[in-house]
Amino acid sequence: MQITISAVGPDNRGLADPIIHYVTGQGANIAEIQMYDHDEECLFAMLLRIELARERYEPLRAAMRAIGDEKQLSIRVWSPDLRPGKPRLAICTTLRPETPLALMRAIRDGRVRAEPAVMIGNRPTCRSLAEQFEVPWHCVGDEQGVVNDEELVAIFDQYEVDYVILARYMRVLSAAACWKYAGGRIVNLHHGLLPSFPGMRPYHEAYAARMLTYGATCHFIVPELDAGNQIIYQSTFTVPPGMKLDEILRRGQEDNEPHCLVEGVRRVVEREVQLHFHRVVAGRMA
Amino acid sequence: MQITISAVGPDNRGLADPIIHYVTGQGANIAEIQMYDHDEECLFAMLLRIELARERYEPLRAAMRAIGDEKQLSIRVWSPDLRPGKPRLAICTTLRPETPLALMRAIRDGRVRAEPAVMIGNRPTCRSLAEQFEVPWHCVGDEQGVVNDEELVAIFDQYEVDYVILARYMRVLSAAACWKYAGGRIVNLHHGLLPSFPGMRPYHEAYAARMLTYGATCHFIVPELDAGNQIIYQSTFTVPPGMKLDEILRRGQEDNEPHCLVEGVRRVVEREVQLHFHRVVAGRMA
Amino acid sequence: MQITISAVGPDNRGLADPIIHYVTGQGANIAEIQMYDHDEECLFAMLLRIELARERYEPLRAAMRAIGDEKQLSIRVWSPDLRPGKPRLAICTTLRPETPLALMRAIRDGRVRAEPAVMIGNRPTCRSLAEQFEVPWHCVGDEQGVVNDEELVAIFDQYEVDYVILARYMRVLSAAACWKYAGGRIVNLHHGLLPSFPGMRPYHEAYAARMLTYGATCHFIVPELDAGNQIIYQSTFTVPPGMKLDEILRRGQEDNEPHCLVEGVRRVVEREVQLHFHRVVAGRMA
Amino acid sequence: MQITISAVGPDNRGLADPIIHYVTGQGANIAEIQMYDHDEECLFAMLLRIELARERYEPLRAAMRAIGDEKQLSIRVWSPDLRPGKPRLAICTTLRPETPLALMRAIRDGRVRAEPAVMIGNRPTCRSLAEQFEVPWHCVGDEQGVVNDEELVAIFDQYEVDYVILARYMRVLSAAACWKYAGGRIVNLHHGLLPSFPGMRPYHEAYAARMLTYGATCHFIVPELDAGNQIIYQSTFTVPPGMKLDEILRRGQEDNEPHCLVEGVRRVVEREVQLHFHRVVAGRMA
Repeated sequence: MQITISAVGPDNRGLADPIIHYVTGQGANIAEIQMYDHDEECLFAMLLRIELARERYEPLRAAMRAIGDEKQLSIRVWSPDLRPGKPRLAICTTLRPETPLALMRAIRDGRVRAEPAVMIGNRPTCRSLAEQFEVPWHCVGDEQGVVNDEELVAIFDQYEVDYVILARYMRVLSAAACWKYAGGRIVNLHHGLLPSFPGMRPYHEAYAARMLTYGATCHFIVPELDAGNQIIYQSTFTVPPGMKLDEILRRGQEDNEPHCLVEGVRRVVEREVQLHFHRVVAGRMA
Repeated sequence: MQITISAVGPDNRGLADPIIHYVTGQGANIAEIQMYDHDEECLFAMLLRIELARERYEPLRAAMRAIGDEKQLSIRVWSPDLRPGKPRLAICTTLRPETPLALMRAIRDGRVRAEPAVMIGNRPTCRSLAEQFEVPWHCVGDEQGVVNDEELVAIFDQYEVDYVILARYMRVLSAAACWKYAGGRIVNLHHGLLPSFPGMRPYHEAYAARMLTYGATCHFIVPELDAGNQIIYQSTFTVPPGMKLDEILRRGQEDNEPHCLVEGVRRVVEREVQLHFHRVVAGRMA
Repeated sequence: MQITISAVGPDNRGLADPIIHYVTGQGANIAEIQMYDHDEECLFAMLLRIELARERYEPLRAAMRAIGDEKQLSIRVWSPDLRPGKPRLAICTTLRPETPLALMRAIRDGRVRAEPAVMIGNRPTCRSLAEQFEVPWHCVGDEQGVVNDEELVAIFDQYEVDYVILARYMRVLSAAACWKYAGGRIVNLHHGLLPSFPGMRPYHEAYAARMLTYGATCHFIVPELDAGNQIIYQSTFTVPPGMKLDEILRRGQEDNEPHCLVEGVRRVVEREVQLHFHRVVAGRMA
Repeated sequence: MQITISAVGPDNRGLADPIIHYVTGQGANIAEIQMYDHDEECLFAMLLRIELARERYEPLRAAMRAIGDEKQLSIRVWSPDLRPGKPRLAICTTLRPETPLALMRAIRDGRVRAEPAVMIGNRPTCRSLAEQFEVPWHCVGDEQGVVNDEELVAIFDQYEVDYVILARYMRVLSAAACWKYAGGRIVNLHHGLLPSFPGMRPYHEAYAARMLTYGATCHFIVPELDAGNQIIYQSTFTVPPGMKLDEILRRGQEDNEPHCLVEGVRRVVEREVQLHFHRVVAGRMA
């Protein structure tokens, strides 16, 4: 069974050793290790992907819990192979309702085979959406929409989510939060074509470049900004010369972005794609 | 009647004065003037767009011919409003036959309302295409495919073409050639999305960036590289994760690029777009 | 004598005709014409550079004043060859005092041969600097530092400045203001190396890219963003690995930027560089 | 003692397990693990940085040799703390002699404390340089200058070099070669400012952007292109407007590049900088 272990701690002394020592002692095959050291923010993290017999999963969880308690590490153990039912999603929102609405409808209609475990906003705007689909709602932002990411991750943990979906959630996740759900569990919708238009205003930038093609990108979030693009799906639309930016924005936000997110999430929950050494690969890994 | 005058000469002393003096003396309204000075290559050029009564067109041509002879300037006078029949095209090719073939078929079937006046290659590869559609053929390249652009422009002049279509023509037109047919008369197909992928290998670059969207761009050529993008049409296609570059290239070259060029040329010959102060604008200008 | 005429108006009907008609009628040699059409903002502009006998300068000014009044155009006539004394500068500031202070000292000590005609701030911060050097001071910003550019240009006009120096002035000049002082009369200090680091936070971006070289760029402002770089002077400094951003900022702001602006302004007022068809060229033009 | 282990193999099954198992069994502290999977080229690699008591170094080497033989892995063990004398350099060249010449002189004069163990060219051009300084010379290129990187690495191994210096060596090292000497042992001189000018013709590109600043960058090579910049030293020079490209090239190649490489190599051999989780950090690591 494929198992992902993520560990985050305040220094890199002894972060890797006890975990690696345990899993090699259990006869696990190590498929991938990534270690990082954000010295400036005192953040040290490791991602471990291993193959281990299913019956050793629970003992592994217990051992990791013990190591975490002893060494003051935040450790998570997860396997996409474990859950019997549908994958559980946390859907994070800010202001725009189109993409979370489209995702909820696709789940309701069976086009995306997943369980909407919780809907979260750093603004209250999408609360009615959660009520409409009878999904638990948490507002995590303060009056300026600023989020305590530890609280956010605690909600992910509480609802035992498999994947986190950022549906035009307009805040940058902290590196620590990314690491805690590392390994291809955080899916973002970016409202421009990556890597060409990475900023906060991709429509405006493409418009300023006088483009006639606009797009959206559904991708995995990885903690390291330098790690390149982990694109799951991209969709585009074409406009005639002279179309005003307002109309382009409307088409993008109401039509193209919702489609892009739904198809991207579908690929992830169906496990048509996975994250493998920072790259998106097709198909299930052996 | 809208008239475009282009003038190219070896120095900028007295390039503009006689032409401007004549047209203002004729009571023309000046809609646009662009002057450039490529000092490093001793190339000086001017583009003038004016409104003038139709009956003054022929005297203007004669006067410009006289000024050109006297001042050693290469002057061209052209109006999109003049020709009674279909616009005449020069179709320039190198190796890939897909885009010129698609354009010839679209013309034959009436989807693009134009006259293929001449087909040109800097390689002999597309000659059979010209023969198939019974269009005059000129091979302008030497053994390495290098082109004398003065010879190329002489062919454009000889066939009295209205527009020059670069159908995966893989050589850079000299600035002088661009100026001689300036004002929105040269249309290029670029096999990547502009401005993001401007180079010679846009498929490879998008692939290296792990994109799942590929595109092509049909645009006007303007002489100045800094002038921004003059995009007439862009089209894209989406691929699943894991598709090999060979297959992506095949889809792009055989399907997306031909579609992109045909739609772009259609927009130009129908005058749905025009070049106006280096920008593509929709609709006919008053 | 070289003369620059700039004209700005609300539409492009009849913008160019009367001006061009007059100057060609006076026997002027036209060295450069640039016309632009910002249709979206209803801004139409022309820059004309001509050679004309000195005795025709005053009649030209009068004629242009009459045309401007009649046609509702904002026309300015200027010649770098006219003024008997030192070139007059408007020095625009926001918060940082280092660059205007360095420039004032260089003028006082005779290293930059210019007259500080007026100092302007969109914030009151640099007022004491103006008082120290006994230069007239105008604060043009509202409470948020927002500037009415027509008021700003009126001050330039009132003080009959030859050049406008943006000394870490942190507001973007409107296109209309740029056109009114077009032709190489507006000099900006950008606190990063252009074109690589064009944004508002070039130190932060170079730091994020882990560079060990930081720089500043003194350049002419031209109205068109696509027109490329008009660099007058660039200077850099090198830091050892591990230097903190705070210390880098300090070195850049207190040492490198002031040096860069002073040398750039010196080159301009000495006419070692000029703007010629959007490019910086060395030496005086014939 | 800090020890670096690099391992390269043809698949990722069992690449990491035996090595990690051994070192954790020896009580090593794991400071850094990087694993990579270049599936397209069937290249799997790991970099391990550990702390281990000095007396366990030789047993570790022997054990790694045994694992390498058994598992068909190419394993290298290296410690910057081990060698009693000066660090040994392999200096790789192509055509330009300025940078290797400057480095040889700096070594001869004691400004760079290193041993030039071997000089290598993929072209014969710099052979006389090796002869002049009585350094062993190997020409590794075929008639087109193409290099078999396994042969190249074998020379590094044969001469037991600590660092590989690419002194305007104009070929891209294969990913496998980079991994075999991973961990901050390969130093390159790039003849432009990174990250702004990464291509093969950085002078030409900066010139086309009309810059007045040119630079060179000395940096560590890391196998992953996405990993960002590992800059050791950058140096620049400024030119006046109007300087021709030929003269700029001359200044850059004859003066700035040699200085940049010498200072960069000095920092590396003095261990003023080290590579730590893909980043250059100042000072020796504890």
